[in-house]
Amino acid sequence: MTHPRYTDLANALPSTVPFVGPETQERARGRSFDARLGANESGFGPSPAAIRAIGEAARGAWMYGDPEMHDLRRALANHLGVEPDAVIAGEGIDGLLGYIARLLVSPGDAVVTSDGAYPTFNFHVAGFGGVLHKVPYRDDAEDPEALVAKAAEVGAKMVYLANPDNPMGSFHGAERLAAMRAALPGGCLLVLDEAYVEFAPEDDLLPLDPSDEGVIRLRTFSKAYGLAGLRVGYAVGHPELIRAFDKIRNHFGLGRVAQAGALAALADTAHLARVQGEVEAARRRIAGIAEANGLLPLPSATNFVALDCGGGAVRAKALVAELGRRGVFVRMPFAAPQDRCIRISAAPEADLAVLERVLPQAIAAIG
Amino acid sequence: MTHPRYTDLANALPSTVPFVGPETQERARGRSFDARLGANESGFGPSPAAIRAIGEAARGAWMYGDPEMHDLRRALANHLGVEPDAVIAGEGIDGLLGYIARLLVSPGDAVVTSDGAYPTFNFHVAGFGGVLHKVPYRDDAEDPEALVAKAAEVGAKMVYLANPDNPMGSFHGAERLAAMRAALPGGCLLVLDEAYVEFAPEDDLLPLDPSDEGVIRLRTFSKAYGLAGLRVGYAVGHPELIRAFDKIRNHFGLGRVAQAGALAALADTAHLARVQGEVEAARRRIAGIAEANGLLPLPSATNFVALDCGGGAVRAKALVAELGRRGVFVRMPFAAPQDRCIRISAAPEADLAVLERVLPQAIAAIG
Repeated sequence: MTHPRYTDLANALPSTVPFVGPETQERARGRSFDARLGANESGFGPSPAAIRAIGEAARGAWMYGDPEMHDLRRALANHLGVEPDAVIAGEGIDGLLGYIARLLVSPGDAVVTSDGAYPTFNFHVAGFGGVLHKVPYRDDAEDPEALVAKAAEVGAKMVYLANPDNPMGSFHGAERLAAMRAALPGGCLLVLDEAYVEFAPEDDLLPLDPSDEGVIRLRTFSKAYGLAGLRVGYAVGHPELIRAFDKIRNHFGLGRVAQAGALAALADTAHLARVQGEVEAARRRIAGIAEANGLLPLPSATNFVALDCGGGAVRAKALVAELGRRGVFVRMPFAAPQDRCIRISAAPEADLAVLERVLPQAIAAIG
Repeated sequence: MTHPRYTDLANALPSTVPFVGPETQERARGRSFDARLGANESGFGPSPAAIRAIGEAARGAWMYGDPEMHDLRRALANHLGVEPDAVIAGEGIDGLLGYIARLLVSPGDAVVTSDGAYPTFNFHVAGFGGVLHKVPYRDDAEDPEALVAKAAEVGAKMVYLANPDNPMGSFHGAERLAAMRAALPGGCLLVLDEAYVEFAPEDDLLPLDPSDEGVIRLRTFSKAYGLAGLRVGYAVGHPELIRAFDKIRNHFGLGRVAQAGALAALADTAHLARVQGEVEAARRRIAGIAEANGLLPLPSATNFVALDCGGGAVRAKALVAELGRRGVFVRMPFAAPQDRCIRISAAPEADLAVLERVLPQAIAAIG
């Protein structure tokens, strides 16, 4: 009688958490991980300037943040070489994906992604009643041609591509992306998730073009900028699409502290360059550890390396569990045949030394 | 041809910002306000312990926050005397209101609120296609009996009540609220916004009862805890309703920094008590300034005071503008006859001294 009357859609949705956090695993095992290598966080940390800015903003945290995010949007626009009306920031790429799904997806609408691509995108599409159509990876990379073909076939309202890709680390250059864009069916939005873009070849990125209504680009302070715990993502697109976020977004959702931290992080280009260098070195180090243990490292344009464990999903899954038991938090792809791999985040040497010590033990344990 | 295909609902919504921020006004006037008294922020600031916790969390901001918010939810539950499964935290009350609307409101569904009550609630209801039915205030307070009667009349899925009320500062005690709850039609959720609850008579609050599926309570760190810029709100309700948020929420939306700040703020009960005392004194001070200038202060159970300017909306609006011109940011109610008032936030003496100096000038200017 007093039971709330949920929408039909809400009744049909499961209560779920797209990712189990490492904290949940730590609570289950009764102690902390020794190396946190599973969420592609940046153990190299945020810019010291960002840390200072957050601490200073804390004193002024009694004030709401600017709902227009004026300074941050201008700084981002300046950084990207676009106009401020082509940029919006929000509660991480996750939050922005939710807003995009809400703007475009009605129950029954078709949306295309890759089998094994980012689950939180799927969570949001399903959350608005969209119907997901998936195409397989091809050669351990998302397959632009197949995505476009599927989008045309099902009349998709949007198609998702992460480039560089998570969880495999693969990357498509500007030419391939431009061809994908050109082949996109009319009225289908390309949602280009570039969470890892700072680790990709800078001279081979699809140029930003906010005059194009067919593409929205998503970037974040959670990876290269080391601010995952601050939750700041941003989108770059056509001003009309960017303005549409104002129809639905939580206008005060990105607080004063988050805006201040992101602004300072963006300005510290030296820190970013240092992290990029550290990540490159860490990828080589991870590859070396993998090879010393008979695992095959895949090429990566991100801050992680996928390692082919050589025994299919069963072996990879066992290895993830054994590493976890021994204090090393890692994750693995969801879909076959990528789930033959485990995924290791770039991290400082202290963490990778733990990996180097523990990996042979874990491999020995699974036999 | 490449234009994104928005949902019918998105096409029908305006691009809007429910509140123009003071920063927007400051940019327009070319300089900062001397006193920020318009957004019911707490100029008494956050707990020093919270400031320290935010600064420390900044170093660890490279890590995502716990999506289950385990520690914060336990601390809140302990503070409230309920089980952790009856509590969820999120991106401010605004964010939580959006989630509630999304869970319950399909296009055409009826929702009841008061004319002149919180606009962001209306923004979210409209954002999911709900139809708002409004009842007038009665004696400058929201009218529980009229809200319930309207909810029964229109078959509302939910009814909104802020208690204490914003923008008038009025308060209904436990008995009145219990009667409202008892009279609520079956299947209608009472959304009880208690953003200002820490300023209300503690011994006259409707007891928390998570076994009741018909009520959800919303509270925040933005007001008494002085952390508006961190964006942390929380909801207390039936565990099934609380669990339903996991169907749709941005699981990583409340970052590590925000969780750490909220946790420290909650623990600093001495700071909260100090702020409560300061706010009480500031309300008296505001009332005194008002009376010295021929304005009538209304009773308040919040951290602001509504002042009847004695000349209807025209005079109140002119006074808000004149105060703004003179460096004092205030706001006023939207709906008649409450819009005969201006609303002044409790603040430290330095800010109220500015008000004391400027108010007579502003009144003289409007004649």
